[in-house]
Amino acid sequence: MIVLYTDFGWEGPYVGQMKAVLAREAPQVSVIDLMHDAPAFSPRPAGYLLAALAGEFPLDTVFVAVIDPGVGDPARRPAAVRADGRWFVGPDNGLFNAVAARARHASWWDLTWQPGRLSASFHGRDLFAPVGARLASGHPPPGESVPVTERLYADWPDDLAEVIYVDHYGNCVTGVRAASLPEGPEVRVAGRGLARGAIFAGRPVGEAFWYENSVGLVEIAANQGRADQALGLAVGDAVEIRSAG
Amino acid sequence: MIVLYTDFGWEGPYVGQMKAVLAREAPQVSVIDLMHDAPAFSPRPAGYLLAALAGEFPLDTVFVAVIDPGVGDPARRPAAVRADGRWFVGPDNGLFNAVAARARHASWWDLTWQPGRLSASFHGRDLFAPVGARLASGHPPPGESVPVTERLYADWPDDLAEVIYVDHYGNCVTGVRAASLPEGPEVRVAGRGLARGAIFAGRPVGEAFWYENSVGLVEIAANQGRADQALGLAVGDAVEIRSAG
Amino acid sequence: MIVLYTDFGWEGPYVGQMKAVLAREAPQVSVIDLMHDAPAFSPRPAGYLLAALAGEFPLDTVFVAVIDPGVGDPARRPAAVRADGRWFVGPDNGLFNAVAARARHASWWDLTWQPGRLSASFHGRDLFAPVGARLASGHPPPGESVPVTERLYADWPDDLAEVIYVDHYGNCVTGVRAASLPEGPEVRVAGRGLARGAIFAGRPVGEAFWYENSVGLVEIAANQGRADQALGLAVGDAVEIRSAG
Repeated sequence: MIVLYTDFGWEGPYVGQMKAVLAREAPQVSVIDLMHDAPAFSPRPAGYLLAALAGEFPLDTVFVAVIDPGVGDPARRPAAVRADGRWFVGPDNGLFNAVAARARHASWWDLTWQPGRLSASFHGRDLFAPVGARLASGHPPPGESVPVTERLYADWPDDLAEVIYVDHYGNCVTGVRAASLPEGPEVRVAGRGLARGAIFAGRPVGEAFWYENSVGLVEIAANQGRADQALGLAVGDAVEIRSAG
Repeated sequence: MIVLYTDFGWEGPYVGQMKAVLAREAPQVSVIDLMHDAPAFSPRPAGYLLAALAGEFPLDTVFVAVIDPGVGDPARRPAAVRADGRWFVGPDNGLFNAVAARARHASWWDLTWQPGRLSASFHGRDLFAPVGARLASGHPPPGESVPVTERLYADWPDDLAEVIYVDHYGNCVTGVRAASLPEGPEVRVAGRGLARGAIFAGRPVGEAFWYENSVGLVEIAANQGRADQALGLAVGDAVEIRSAG
Repeated sequence: MIVLYTDFGWEGPYVGQMKAVLAREAPQVSVIDLMHDAPAFSPRPAGYLLAALAGEFPLDTVFVAVIDPGVGDPARRPAAVRADGRWFVGPDNGLFNAVAARARHASWWDLTWQPGRLSASFHGRDLFAPVGARLASGHPPPGESVPVTERLYADWPDDLAEVIYVDHYGNCVTGVRAASLPEGPEVRVAGRGLARGAIFAGRPVGEAFWYENSVGLVEIAANQGRADQALGLAVGDAVEIRSAG
């Protein structure tokens, strides 16, 4: 299974062009769109979100992930990462940092293969899709193995105490795993403490609260309302985690 | 064939996460996105729209349909419905009322199966997708058969004289089947009678009119313009049907 | 492979309804969404864009392309076109003009087949999808062969010096192939000459420039900014091409 994770949006031909390459290079492999509105130009929050989502997919899933910037920058080497049995292909701009740092077993390859055609602006189609198709077909990464520790951003935290995604409903996903919270956790945004909620239907309409979302992250929501608007939140805004105990 | 009908939007990972479950549980079954912008938080109009669309799909199609609210509310039991040879899986919040009420043959099951993981906020992924995969693989519904009449909303009308969906072009779909109109029908919105139109190219540019749309519903359109803006219409607004005869 | 190219948007049931027909009529054929936000009501720019994109797809790909207006207009005959080994099915409103005009080998059929059900408003589902499914299954076009020259718009240029698409990032794609530019090309919009750029990361943030995009067209971009807003550009706006030499 190949899973696409990009900031391309659903508009435009870009996703379809990547799928054309995948259909040609790996016609027997199914392709799933995980999301195409990952935080644009923001590989750091996009990477924490990807790490939370990836565990839902079967072993040997190949994630083809593309978030600007970094694509096309000669100082960054495109990467293939194997983390706990899943593959990740894309730019080395931090997008795979959380996935690799959290994995019990991780390996990293700098991609050295050059396609016959490599446009300056569309590495997703020209480089990452063909490499993803190869990996999904059982071939090894066309690159050079490097120690994972040389590629990790040593100063990035285990959990990112920021809003990393605002969804369709205005819910604000954070980069904090609920399992990593201290005892008696207090979650504060914009100087304001939030109550912990369980299910949407149990809260007063419009009230903001936090809960553990379906992929284990702290998420800020408002029942039948938009938490982003109620609290003035956007991607990158800080969340404060305290122990009330 | 599994058909997805939700109010999740195309943004975010939610549709992709459901597809990951379907790919794992029913890898041989094709999945089609019918729509992901069904009226949000509005299972009643969403249900009349689903009833109009479902007839286009082959027998044994499994619709996995998720519209809030109702998901996660303990007073509502998730449902599997078989109506004229097609399956419908989702929350029992009225979404399947029109489908079941109009069917010549309908059966209803309260779902009693509990998945190993059931998040409070994502029954689409944890409950409805796995059940849909089972049904698409030929297994019976994992639940308790109940008389359909016990689950129908007795006071809901056969046709819903309201705008139930506003599309990309501003066209306003109503919940009224053209075949149910009286002789010499007059369609009025916002106190204003509308002419009946046939094809778009035959109308003056910008003029609002009504016609029988491609799934048999009364739809209000404006040639190369937006009927919703021209007439100030939104989902839930009343449409008046009279007989001019 | 069947490729969908429409102005339907991702909203609404329309794409899903077409896919239901394709799944029924050609269940073994994979379907790729190329784009659903092709310029609405604008078959001319949509056609130049399609011509630039089509070459990426394998031989025998069937493009089912639908752009209003023209659909439903009795003066226009729906068309099947074979151009350099690929199929194109849709309305004859200019959408296939660039594809056919540029092909070394092109053939044109007026479609004469009438489906059992032909709604006035949804030829994509009722006519073009079934014909596309037939072609993808190896059957000949159900219509009448006509000379391509009788169907071409003789006064349409080889390249369209206009903005033909504005993407998700605000990049403005033009209908001019970079390979057709004169020596020492100068690209001007809104009275202003633009520098030629190579890759995004190499330009100052926010600066507008032009470059050859990943399908060979002149495209106007702004590094990490929106060129459409910076330059006030929209689909249909003229681009001036000069030779500075």
